[in-house]
Amino acid sequence: MRRQAGQDDTICAISTAIGLAGIGVVRVSGAKAFQVVQSLFKGSGELAKVQSHTAHYGHVIDPNSLEIVDEALFLVMKAPRTYTGEDVVEIQTHGSPLILEKILSLLVMQGARLAAPGEFTRRAFLLGRIDLVQAEAVMEVITAENWDHHGWALKQLKGSLSRQVEFLREHLLQILAHIEASIDFSEEGIHFWTDSEMGKEIGSVSEEVERLLAGYAEGRKIREGFTAVIIGRPNVGKSSLMNLLLEEDRAIVTPLPGTTRDILQETVHIEGLPLRITDTAGYRATEDPIEAEGVRRGEEALEKADLILWMLDSSEPLQIEDDVLARRLKGKRKIILLNKSDLPECLDHSRIRTEHPQEVILPFSTVTGSGLGDLKREIKQLLRKQPEKEQPLVALLRHRTALEAASKSLHRAIKAVEENASWEFLAADLREGADSLGEIIGETTTDEILDQIFNNFCIGK
Amino acid sequence: MRRQAGQDDTICAISTAIGLAGIGVVRVSGAKAFQVVQSLFKGSGELAKVQSHTAHYGHVIDPNSLEIVDEALFLVMKAPRTYTGEDVVEIQTHGSPLILEKILSLLVMQGARLAAPGEFTRRAFLLGRIDLVQAEAVMEVITAENWDHHGWALKQLKGSLSRQVEFLREHLLQILAHIEASIDFSEEGIHFWTDSEMGKEIGSVSEEVERLLAGYAEGRKIREGFTAVIIGRPNVGKSSLMNLLLEEDRAIVTPLPGTTRDILQETVHIEGLPLRITDTAGYRATEDPIEAEGVRRGEEALEKADLILWMLDSSEPLQIEDDVLARRLKGKRKIILLNKSDLPECLDHSRIRTEHPQEVILPFSTVTGSGLGDLKREIKQLLRKQPEKEQPLVALLRHRTALEAASKSLHRAIKAVEENASWEFLAADLREGADSLGEIIGETTTDEILDQIFNNFCIGK
Repeated sequence: MRRQAGQDDTICAISTAIGLAGIGVVRVSGAKAFQVVQSLFKGSGELAKVQSHTAHYGHVIDPNSLEIVDEALFLVMKAPRTYTGEDVVEIQTHGSPLILEKILSLLVMQGARLAAPGEFTRRAFLLGRIDLVQAEAVMEVITAENWDHHGWALKQLKGSLSRQVEFLREHLLQILAHIEASIDFSEEGIHFWTDSEMGKEIGSVSEEVERLLAGYAEGRKIREGFTAVIIGRPNVGKSSLMNLLLEEDRAIVTPLPGTTRDILQETVHIEGLPLRITDTAGYRATEDPIEAEGVRRGEEALEKADLILWMLDSSEPLQIEDDVLARRLKGKRKIILLNKSDLPECLDHSRIRTEHPQEVILPFSTVTGSGLGDLKREIKQLLRKQPEKEQPLVALLRHRTALEAASKSLHRAIKAVEENASWEFLAADLREGADSLGEIIGETTTDEILDQIFNNFCIGK
Repeated sequence: MRRQAGQDDTICAISTAIGLAGIGVVRVSGAKAFQVVQSLFKGSGELAKVQSHTAHYGHVIDPNSLEIVDEALFLVMKAPRTYTGEDVVEIQTHGSPLILEKILSLLVMQGARLAAPGEFTRRAFLLGRIDLVQAEAVMEVITAENWDHHGWALKQLKGSLSRQVEFLREHLLQILAHIEASIDFSEEGIHFWTDSEMGKEIGSVSEEVERLLAGYAEGRKIREGFTAVIIGRPNVGKSSLMNLLLEEDRAIVTPLPGTTRDILQETVHIEGLPLRITDTAGYRATEDPIEAEGVRRGEEALEKADLILWMLDSSEPLQIEDDVLARRLKGKRKIILLNKSDLPECLDHSRIRTEHPQEVILPFSTVTGSGLGDLKREIKQLLRKQPEKEQPLVALLRHRTALEAASKSLHRAIKAVEENASWEFLAADLREGADSLGEIIGETTTDEILDQIFNNFCIGK
């Protein structure tokens, strides 16, 4: 299915986000890209004849009425050194949905077709410019909300996972070739490898597959990010802590519109580490159904959290509610904050230490901000793992599923070798294993799966 | 203030809309644009040395960590043939706010400055590439929601109003030069023009100013669009009509995410004419405060509407509520729809005709859609004026205000001529008039006004 000849039709889509903005871009790709765009182009020169990767000022006109639609910059890129591998024109106009949609409709009138989601990337894949893991990585790069995720996605885009999977698949295919040669020569009683050698060869592939699978838990966390919950009895200062963390963050991050604030959950950046923090509603038993819903959601967040920030009021003695919470939080990874350190201390510090010998305990003041630096350092230390440089991390469910299938096939093959089965019986399992690996990089992927993958893409990518 | 030398600092901003998308663009402009971007550029060649208007594939790297931030296309455009008139680089990456913001922060670290809203356009203005009317037109092109508005904005961008205003201002300056020459030679008793000639000269400018002012009402409508209100007693079929109009529309307009639907008000396109339609809540007296608020809003929309679509139920006799409405709608431009034409008719058709001799009355069925074609034709005919091709339309309040000031000055001058005042007294008025006109195109505009104008721009334009 891959490495098909170029698609017949020429596709177009708005590639920038929808909204009023300085710039909007319509992308056109396909054999007739230059011809189609030329019919809307008013400017000097012929787009098909200009040098690749040059931008040309002109106007988009409606070829029927000859009316000007907008000023535009036409960026001409010639196959094969383009995103899709086909001829591409990017029409850059004012960032107005009205204008961009109009240009789309004119392009369609001139013979282009509206691109399906991800169709530009799909073409890059079909033309063999990238494999399927890289194609998926494009969308991961776009949607990554934190730098770990982003860095992981860029690596996938560069082909780190692809290379390893391809390497393992090639290894399996070599083993298969060996088996087939052995079968051909079987009448002469020639075996190229002993059973034990065969077991070792398959085992080494299987081991690598298991290693990749073992990385999934970490990979998934990288994609989804870390979560923390601020907990404590009412009025202990939870919201003030949230605000403190947010305020610092807002000052650092470039202020941009468009991010909605959820009252319950916010993402803050702790020295570059993004952390989704849930501020639980005042934690106490309640009959009020609305408040109860808040508590329920808090519980859920608590269950899933990677870290708990437990707040106590150091200006008061421990209360029953604190004890209840202490039991509730047993065994969870947490930082204990003794808030209101700006007031005289009334809390039995040593009892806390005795009851929580393992935990980080920090004096804190949401009023003065004292303790904030320590808190951040501790959060980062608790959550941030040193990323393993060498091993590509599997983080997509689709990859894991295919690796699990490969794992099963390989284990069957290994078992067959151990049971001294005829090598003919191995061949089917190994071929299944190679196919499962091929599915990851798109060598053996059905159209249905491709549809599933690219339907999750943005339009225009 | 205009035609200043280049600004010292180099500015940068995200120029595409915020959101996940295929493409995002960061624009950098200024004397150090190439130098600043070069420090983030990993690719072949030196950006300052490549040809203008060429795109270069490479990576954006963090110059401190040398880590890759994203793949990117670097579009290099050299002064003066650029948007701002300065050196410009556009960095095109994946459309991820995370990535785009990161690139901004790196650019700032390398010595660029975050651009203020509209600052790229402001620079184009300050460097004399465009005048102030054209600068304002940029934002009008971006925000235009209908084709009349868009066409008007494009004309302004091309300079149609600018030329006329500049012409009138030049004319005033010539008159002033005449006056000054006359004063210089006054001892010799030489007058270049007679008083009547002088009156005629000023009068011709004044006439043009009045013509421009007279176009404001129409210009404003073009900018703001037409509005219609659907009205009628409860259950007469108002919402069904709204849905019918919307459904047709949705099928035509390219489906794109991002447009929020307001329950009360929707924009539909009647053969290309955009029309904001308010569907009034069931129109009746009510004590329920929430419903009352709906009625109040309906009343307000009614007051301002360019057209009313009044719906009656032709399957029932007229009711008291209909009569109340009839009185309420007296003297307003409306189309009367006799809905439920698919059911047996019980309405006194001729009475309606007698009571509303001027109005368009259409049988209609929201069930079968019958009458929809006629309705659209009538709407378009009632609202669409033939745009006057020659005369540039004044549509911005700022322009009107300046024209009114010019008008006053000119009237004072004309009056002075009529009263045979010494020409010296004219000079001040004419100079004020010329200044007011100059304010429109930005020849005599204060920084404060520039701030006001550009603060309404998108960031990145």
